[in-house]
Amino acid sequence: MANPVFILNGPNLNLLGTRQPEIYGATTLADIEAACKKRAQALGLEIDFRQSNSEGELVDWLHEAGRAGAGVVLNAGGYTHTSVAVMDAISSIEVPVIEVHLSNIHAREDYRRRSYVGEVATGSICGFGALGYQLALEAMADVLAGG
Amino acid sequence: MANPVFILNGPNLNLLGTRQPEIYGATTLADIEAACKKRAQALGLEIDFRQSNSEGELVDWLHEAGRAGAGVVLNAGGYTHTSVAVMDAISSIEVPVIEVHLSNIHAREDYRRRSYVGEVATGSICGFGALGYQLALEAMADVLAGG
Amino acid sequence: MANPVFILNGPNLNLLGTRQPEIYGATTLADIEAACKKRAQALGLEIDFRQSNSEGELVDWLHEAGRAGAGVVLNAGGYTHTSVAVMDAISSIEVPVIEVHLSNIHAREDYRRRSYVGEVATGSICGFGALGYQLALEAMADVLAGG
Amino acid sequence: MANPVFILNGPNLNLLGTRQPEIYGATTLADIEAACKKRAQALGLEIDFRQSNSEGELVDWLHEAGRAGAGVVLNAGGYTHTSVAVMDAISSIEVPVIEVHLSNIHAREDYRRRSYVGEVATGSICGFGALGYQLALEAMADVLAGG
Amino acid sequence: MANPVFILNGPNLNLLGTRQPEIYGATTLADIEAACKKRAQALGLEIDFRQSNSEGELVDWLHEAGRAGAGVVLNAGGYTHTSVAVMDAISSIEVPVIEVHLSNIHAREDYRRRSYVGEVATGSICGFGALGYQLALEAMADVLAGG
Amino acid sequence: MANPVFILNGPNLNLLGTRQPEIYGATTLADIEAACKKRAQALGLEIDFRQSNSEGELVDWLHEAGRAGAGVVLNAGGYTHTSVAVMDAISSIEVPVIEVHLSNIHAREDYRRRSYVGEVATGSICGFGALGYQLALEAMADVLAGG
Amino acid sequence: MANPVFILNGPNLNLLGTRQPEIYGATTLADIEAACKKRAQALGLEIDFRQSNSEGELVDWLHEAGRAGAGVVLNAGGYTHTSVAVMDAISSIEVPVIEVHLSNIHAREDYRRRSYVGEVATGSICGFGALGYQLALEAMADVLAGG
Amino acid sequence: MANPVFILNGPNLNLLGTRQPEIYGATTLADIEAACKKRAQALGLEIDFRQSNSEGELVDWLHEAGRAGAGVVLNAGGYTHTSVAVMDAISSIEVPVIEVHLSNIHAREDYRRRSYVGEVATGSICGFGALGYQLALEAMADVLAGG
Amino acid sequence: MANPVFILNGPNLNLLGTRQPEIYGATTLADIEAACKKRAQALGLEIDFRQSNSEGELVDWLHEAGRAGAGVVLNAGGYTHTSVAVMDAISSIEVPVIEVHLSNIHAREDYRRRSYVGEVATGSICGFGALGYQLALEAMADVLAGG
Amino acid sequence: MANPVFILNGPNLNLLGTRQPEIYGATTLADIEAACKKRAQALGLEIDFRQSNSEGELVDWLHEAGRAGAGVVLNAGGYTHTSVAVMDAISSIEVPVIEVHLSNIHAREDYRRRSYVGEVATGSICGFGALGYQLALEAMADVLAGG
Amino acid sequence: MANPVFILNGPNLNLLGTRQPEIYGATTLADIEAACKKRAQALGLEIDFRQSNSEGELVDWLHEAGRAGAGVVLNAGGYTHTSVAVMDAISSIEVPVIEVHLSNIHAREDYRRRSYVGEVATGSICGFGALGYQLALEAMADVLAGG
Amino acid sequence: MANPVFILNGPNLNLLGTRQPEIYGATTLADIEAACKKRAQALGLEIDFRQSNSEGELVDWLHEAGRAGAGVVLNAGGYTHTSVAVMDAISSIEVPVIEVHLSNIHAREDYRRRSYVGEVATGSICGFGALGYQLALEAMADVLAGG
Repeated sequence: MANPVFILNGPNLNLLGTRQPEIYGATTLADIEAACKKRAQALGLEIDFRQSNSEGELVDWLHEAGRAGAGVVLNAGGYTHTSVAVMDAISSIEVPVIEVHLSNIHAREDYRRRSYVGEVATGSICGFGALGYQLALEAMADVLAGG
Repeated sequence: MANPVFILNGPNLNLLGTRQPEIYGATTLADIEAACKKRAQALGLEIDFRQSNSEGELVDWLHEAGRAGAGVVLNAGGYTHTSVAVMDAISSIEVPVIEVHLSNIHAREDYRRRSYVGEVATGSICGFGALGYQLALEAMADVLAGG
Repeated sequence: MANPVFILNGPNLNLLGTRQPEIYGATTLADIEAACKKRAQALGLEIDFRQSNSEGELVDWLHEAGRAGAGVVLNAGGYTHTSVAVMDAISSIEVPVIEVHLSNIHAREDYRRRSYVGEVATGSICGFGALGYQLALEAMADVLAGG
Repeated sequence: MANPVFILNGPNLNLLGTRQPEIYGATTLADIEAACKKRAQALGLEIDFRQSNSEGELVDWLHEAGRAGAGVVLNAGGYTHTSVAVMDAISSIEVPVIEVHLSNIHAREDYRRRSYVGEVATGSICGFGALGYQLALEAMADVLAGG
Repeated sequence: MANPVFILNGPNLNLLGTRQPEIYGATTLADIEAACKKRAQALGLEIDFRQSNSEGELVDWLHEAGRAGAGVVLNAGGYTHTSVAVMDAISSIEVPVIEVHLSNIHAREDYRRRSYVGEVATGSICGFGALGYQLALEAMADVLAGG
Repeated sequence: MANPVFILNGPNLNLLGTRQPEIYGATTLADIEAACKKRAQALGLEIDFRQSNSEGELVDWLHEAGRAGAGVVLNAGGYTHTSVAVMDAISSIEVPVIEVHLSNIHAREDYRRRSYVGEVATGSICGFGALGYQLALEAMADVLAGG
Repeated sequence: MANPVFILNGPNLNLLGTRQPEIYGATTLADIEAACKKRAQALGLEIDFRQSNSEGELVDWLHEAGRAGAGVVLNAGGYTHTSVAVMDAISSIEVPVIEVHLSNIHAREDYRRRSYVGEVATGSICGFGALGYQLALEAMADVLAGG
Repeated sequence: MANPVFILNGPNLNLLGTRQPEIYGATTLADIEAACKKRAQALGLEIDFRQSNSEGELVDWLHEAGRAGAGVVLNAGGYTHTSVAVMDAISSIEVPVIEVHLSNIHAREDYRRRSYVGEVATGSICGFGALGYQLALEAMADVLAGG
Repeated sequence: MANPVFILNGPNLNLLGTRQPEIYGATTLADIEAACKKRAQALGLEIDFRQSNSEGELVDWLHEAGRAGAGVVLNAGGYTHTSVAVMDAISSIEVPVIEVHLSNIHAREDYRRRSYVGEVATGSICGFGALGYQLALEAMADVLAGG
Repeated sequence: MANPVFILNGPNLNLLGTRQPEIYGATTLADIEAACKKRAQALGLEIDFRQSNSEGELVDWLHEAGRAGAGVVLNAGGYTHTSVAVMDAISSIEVPVIEVHLSNIHAREDYRRRSYVGEVATGSICGFGALGYQLALEAMADVLAGG
Repeated sequence: MANPVFILNGPNLNLLGTRQPEIYGATTLADIEAACKKRAQALGLEIDFRQSNSEGELVDWLHEAGRAGAGVVLNAGGYTHTSVAVMDAISSIEVPVIEVHLSNIHAREDYRRRSYVGEVATGSICGFGALGYQLALEAMADVLAGG
Repeated sequence: MANPVFILNGPNLNLLGTRQPEIYGATTLADIEAACKKRAQALGLEIDFRQSNSEGELVDWLHEAGRAGAGVVLNAGGYTHTSVAVMDAISSIEVPVIEVHLSNIHAREDYRRRSYVGEVATGSICGFGALGYQLALEAMADVLAGG
């Protein structure tokens, strides 16, 4: 069986859809996982979907993906803008990493414009909410197919 | 018939695939147009695909899209990073605008990190080459469907 | 007959009053032109009122105003903040140039604070909507009278 | 009787026209007051014309204008570029405040480009010498008329 | 009798509660003074409560507090961010100075992030409205008791 | 029983009072907890007092406080100045968060002037040592009472 | 017959020698073209000499030079300092591009110090007036000869 | 009788020598005035020695010195680094102004490095304590003699 | 028995030598530990060699070293450039801390030039690969001997 | 006999062509001197060709050229970007100085973009290797002829 | 006999008075030396007056002054703004160093505002031409007397 | 016999140990040379130990080391932070260069953080006093052995 694509979610994403739904919508991280599963199946991919609030755990999982994954779809949340450790972890593994964000980070505060993840990722997708994860899976299928 | 999605390409993209194919690959802008047509059809969208090296003409086309288009997929090339006029044109129309770039602009020179387009677009997709246009169309279909 | 005062309008101003009237008001560029005509008449001035989305065409018109105009009232829109070419065009002609903006650019985004036009113009008027054009014409009459 | 428009002048403007007339011209602040009176009469406005070198006194007068004035035409001189206190005073009153400068501050030293006054004023007029005050009065009449 | 604690208020604070109560609330500076009096009594402190829009007068009062006060609770308003003179006055007196702000200055504009007062004060309290003054008095009592 | 106020302490605060007492004083974190308990009782509040050196654990606890706490008093230590993840956690919960620091961070190194916590907290208290926690509890009682 | 060297001139250069000759001298762009023709002949080169105020047209011409020219001597005027589009056009063609300026741009305003053209050109010559074009042609001959 | 040299002292200098003598020494402003008187006499100069904590009053006095003084020796204290109003006052008078500081401002905090006074003064002397005033008087005598 | 020297390794260093050996070489962290053991023995030192991807765990270990170690050799990896928490942990312990990096961080990206660790460490060694750890141990022996 | 043109070469240029010829080519400084001699003869100029690694010696030679030279062609090497002393020396002599660089300094590291030499030189030529010296001589002949 | 005061002059000062006397005046460095001798005699000081264009030689002389001089009056010319080596030399000797400049460096280019010399000198005098050296000698006498 | 390792010392290092021994210790440069000799012998290396205050002489010596040395241990003193010439000299030679500093430059003034030497050196060692030279020699032996 082929290695799964790791879909890694960073800090605060566990709260998605459960708080302030009038602002962030009602989609939960579980909903996103379900939609990813369906899309992955259509694309012939396995997925391994996780969330952590810990920078170190995200680094650990990126290492694990380097050993046992086909690629990584990464929404690093707030660590996107501050973590050289996550950036180095991406650089030190050889599988493709695709950055995804629910909102358009370019339209937000200045300190969210710098993305350490984006500087070493294969590509980035932002602003399309939960759909972004599915687009990232399609891009991943294309990259894995040598696209 | 529904309004078409405008796919607008900025300066230097006309050279795509015809020069230095060993670096930029052999895909031409015509190839991208053909692939977009196919994907659009599958998504039930019409497209209107254009390229211009002129900043003013891109502004004109964005206005036209505001009147007669359903949305815009925009690869503004070098104007991405310098044009407040293009940015204002996006802000002054009401249809959704999705930014796309062939390469990962976050991994390039500093002056390419600032995207005036990205600050007012619905979302951004970069780093996936020609596939990015197709992902943008899928995102557009989702946005138009109220996604 | 005396040379006319050129009233030159830059990118996106053609949309004025025709879109999002709840935000920008219902005054169109044609309304502004009509009001300018009336005020000009009262001041004994001719006007030549134009709009373009093209940076190069604005440079062309500034040159034309240098040859065949009495002065220029310029709302350069988004080029105000990015165009050294427009700035150089103003410097290279000898007739007075007065900058006008509908909104108060000092109260907006940082990148709108720098005005290349303002650095070489005779003076600036901003924040008074369409009335600003008429004030600019009165200032122009005063400047032309050696004020 | 309607509340007057306060015309407030900041530091060093008392010297206008009395020193170095070969540079700054011979127009005195009294001349400007006289011209303002005439214009105000034509526009149906009362004015209250004052000058102070003290930042605190300008703040006091802005408060007074908030209670007993119809609006403020403000040339804050050197405090334009340094005074958050004046800026807050403008924000804390509800009558319109119009900024005026004799010279074109955009064409001068870098530290004169930032205008705290301009960031909270209704609009700005600069570069037209004493005429600027009259244009400001006309703009004020328009604003007060709901323009 | 022990020296009083000076509670000094800077520019625009005299307007508190009398204008735009829907935004800033209905608490006036007199209300704050009354609440401070009560709390001071409970803490065994005398207070001397003043307000001025003048930077120089605030400097004078800080000097007076150095001679005849036990400490200073200071809300320097807009001078907080611009006044080296106030900062030097704090440094040149030996009684403790505690900074207080009604709103959370860290959550506002960039130029309000720098606090010259905060750099030389004993401590700072902001964001708690009128209650902040009472907390400052309690802190002052603790500091004066050698806390 | 009402939800408790979480009092969360970040990295290195566990060492308080046990090392270099000649510099930092002899007060330990346990002493602060005891004093907080007493003050909370007087104010009719419950508290839940914790410390962690881990950024991720602080994020977890903030989430927990969002579900099961009445509010948070937060001394994020070194994460104050670097953690967008902690900042986002504060934004994503609806209970009030009050920032506290033992020392006056405005009087220290430049990189300690920026407080991500302060930008989204209700208010801040710094420079009063252990007393600051008690003042924060009093402010919290006031905020919870709708103050 | 060999491909010509394109000599491309940007905005405002059409005014050369026809306005303010007391400042910029009496040499016109036609004079420069004539001198270039003579020098080119001596060096065995053909030239194609053009001017445009339009950024997009300059991009078009650079593309044309990439297909049908031997090299480019480029005086991009004001676009030198602002145009990523022109920069990308230079990067996307394979013939050598030599930058020329009439005045010494290093001795002028700060925003003229950054030359996007210079960053991708083969070399630069500035400060020698019309002679600079001839020196550029000689350098071009040397480069084309494999110098 | 010749016009006197104004020796103007800004905020906080009134405290000199009366507080913290172990740090700032025991010399008072009155001592400096006395020493200045003696030196002035030896140089054949009259002096008029004043101190104010008010920025506006310093501006007033500079104007007075422009009308009725021979020159100004100015220690503007904290206003040195923040006051464009004082700077403009110096520029608007024609008598020479010499800057003096007791301490070496170059060796202190960054925000004390910028001297608005120094940018428009004839010259500067700092770091020599009270002696600096006497050196300034000698320099003034030289300047007044056309030195 | 004397306290051991803690040799602490931060994020991603666990991958050393096991991935991309053609770039980073074949030396593993275990190899470095072995070499350190040998050198330590020669110098009469005990070592305690650890690695973690977690910022909080590194802070914990630094505290432990403060209680039970003789000193620390620290390669903080990506946290070197972002962690005020690690910096504060170093400051809060009294044993010497020596910074070591495998590569020359001065010759890499800008954001790697700032080392929070270096600002509070006793000294730094970088660019010598695995040998750097041994040089650090020798330096540590010297420092512990009062060198 | 006419004064010679000084051709002055700064630090490290003595190594030209003798090390790493695969990178920098085989042309030595002696080759450049020979080519300059030939070109100078054709232009009717004398030259005096020198090299030094000492900043002070270059300043001395510029002074000497001011007394005994017709002009200076200067390749100041690394001092180009740091030496105010060299810049002042150029400003203090009256003969024309032309800057030359072998490589295109605009396409190299950021710190090489600032040229103190260029700010005070007559003009600059860079990117054409040894030929640049000959172009500089032709420009010098033109300047000396009043070009 | 007492150690002499070293009066050290940096690059380009040897040209003083011999070139462009219409700008810099006719005073030569020899004239300054003579005036210094006379003033020194009156103050009971010996002087040793030197000039060098070499940064290294100035460092050597500062060392020599540290061994064999009473103090240093230093006009470091262009090295003032760039030389950490000169700055370190001043820091490493124990005799007082007084900075002097002929012109007012605060009123010149931005890069002349930073004075490395001023940051470690006892005090600074600028803007008074040759007289500044004599004022510096008087200040030196005062400092040496323990002033 | 093998080429020696050059140990080059820059400005002010000649004063080591002879002045302010209470601060910098009593170790002289001669002591360091002696210790280096001994360590070199143990490592089988020859050394050539020199000091100069002249930037140019250091460049000359680096060139000499490129021709006749095995490698360079360089303490460039104050030139470390300003000298592009020294940086270029290191780049233009092929032998390894190791940077050494007595103190921890990361813990000192901001302008000492940038090391031009460090950007092109093989590695850096700082903060260990005289021992740093010996560690650098061991690192050099390792590098020369192909380590």
